[in-house]
Amino acid sequence: MPSPASIRPDASNPPSPFRSREEKIRERAEKREAVLRAAVRMFNARGFHATSLDDVAASLGISKPTIYHYLGNKEQVLIECVTRGLKPLRIAAEQAQSEEGRGLEPLRMAAEAAKDEPGSGLDRLRRFLLHYAQINMDDFGRCVVRTGDEALSPEAAAQFRARKRDIDLALRGLIEAGIADGSIAPVDVQMAAFTLAGALNWPARWHDPAGPKPADEIAASLVEIVTGGLAPRR
Amino acid sequence: MPSPASIRPDASNPPSPFRSREEKIRERAEKREAVLRAAVRMFNARGFHATSLDDVAASLGISKPTIYHYLGNKEQVLIECVTRGLKPLRIAAEQAQSEEGRGLEPLRMAAEAAKDEPGSGLDRLRRFLLHYAQINMDDFGRCVVRTGDEALSPEAAAQFRARKRDIDLALRGLIEAGIADGSIAPVDVQMAAFTLAGALNWPARWHDPAGPKPADEIAASLVEIVTGGLAPRR
Repeated sequence: MPSPASIRPDASNPPSPFRSREEKIRERAEKREAVLRAAVRMFNARGFHATSLDDVAASLGISKPTIYHYLGNKEQVLIECVTRGLKPLRIAAEQAQSEEGRGLEPLRMAAEAAKDEPGSGLDRLRRFLLHYAQINMDDFGRCVVRTGDEALSPEAAAQFRARKRDIDLALRGLIEAGIADGSIAPVDVQMAAFTLAGALNWPARWHDPAGPKPADEIAASLVEIVTGGLAPRR
Repeated sequence: MPSPASIRPDASNPPSPFRSREEKIRERAEKREAVLRAAVRMFNARGFHATSLDDVAASLGISKPTIYHYLGNKEQVLIECVTRGLKPLRIAAEQAQSEEGRGLEPLRMAAEAAKDEPGSGLDRLRRFLLHYAQINMDDFGRCVVRTGDEALSPEAAAQFRARKRDIDLALRGLIEAGIADGSIAPVDVQMAAFTLAGALNWPARWHDPAGPKPADEIAASLVEIVTGGLAPRR
C-alpha cells in the first residue's frame, strides 16, 4: 500500500495533513539550510560581530531558540558557514590532485609537447582556480574569506587554519606539477600560491552578487590575468 | 639668547626640568603616535570589535581618557588608523601619476622603443605596485585591508570607500597608460586592477612581520608574479 504522502492530491484524494518520515527529514534539512543562508548573508553584509542571532531569527520570522535548535550558538553558526564554504574548495582540490595522479607519468614523458595543451599542469591549475574563484564569490565562500581567525575561539581558529592550509598545499602541489611538466616556468611556489589565492580571494570584498557581470565571467578574467605570467616565455 | 632647551646639558649646565614649546609639541606627537601604534597592532591581532580601548590603554600603562584626549573614541581611532594606512598609498599613486603626466608625450612618440624599458607604463605600474605591496604589509596598511566597510559608521564608511576608490582609479590609470604605450597588452582594466590589488592586499592576512622574509623581498616576488602576464607576448 502506498504511503499517504505518495498519493497524488486531487478532488477525491485531498493532501494528507500528516507528513511522511522522508518529508520531515527533508523539511528539517530545508529549514536548517534557510537559517544558514540567512545567517551567512547577514554576516557578510554587517560583519560577524555586528550580527545578532535575534536579527537572523527575525529575518526568517522565527525565534532565536529555533536557530539554537538547528545550528547552535552564533560561533557554531559561523563555523558551519566557513565549513560549508571550504568544502567545495577541498573537493575541487582533491579532484585536481587526482587528475594530477592519473595524468602525471604520461605528461612527464610528453612534457615538451604538452605545454599549454589541455592536460598540462598549468591547464589543470587554471581549471582548479576557476572553481576556486567562483566558490569564493558565493555566500559561503565570501564568508570564508571575510572571516579572520581572530573572530573564532582558539580551537575553532586552529581547525579553520588547518582546513585553509590543506587548500594552500593542494594549490602548491598543482603549481609544482606544472613546473615539473614544463608548463609553468620555475617560480617561488609559496609566493605564487599566495599571489593566486589573494587575487581570487579578493572578490569576496568587492564583488556584488547583484552586479551585471556573472561570477563565471569574472572568474575567467581574473584567472587569465593572474596566471598569464606563469607559462615560460618562449 | 638661546632658549633653555638649546643649552647642552653638562656638569655646569644640568638639563632644565622645564620643556620648551617645541619639546612639548614633539612629546604630544610622540604620545599620540604611541597610542595609535598600540591600537592598530591590537586591532590587527584581535580584530576591531574584540579590542577595547581599555586594553590598548593598559598595554601603554595609561588610562582610557588619555586615549580619548589624544585620538577620540574607538571608531575615531580606527578612522585615524585607516587614514594613516591610505595616505602613503595616495602619495605613491600621485607620484606615479605625475611621472605619468611628465613622461606621457615622449613615451607616446617612442612607444615601440620604450617597451619594457625603465619608464614604460608597465615599469611605472610595477614601481607603484612595489610601494603598494610594502605599504600593505605595515601596521596601518594591514589595518586598511582588514577593515571592512561594515565596521564603520555610514559616514566614515563612505569616506573610506571614496579614498580606496581614488587609489583604484590611480591603479586603473597606470594600467591604461601602459596599454597606451604598448608595454601592457590590452586587458579588461577594471579586472586587472582588482587582480593586482587582491594579490597585493592579501599579505595583510598571511604575512608575519616577524617572519624570516623581509617585506621588500615578498613585495618583489608578488609583483613579479602578478604582473608577469601583463606584457604583450612577442
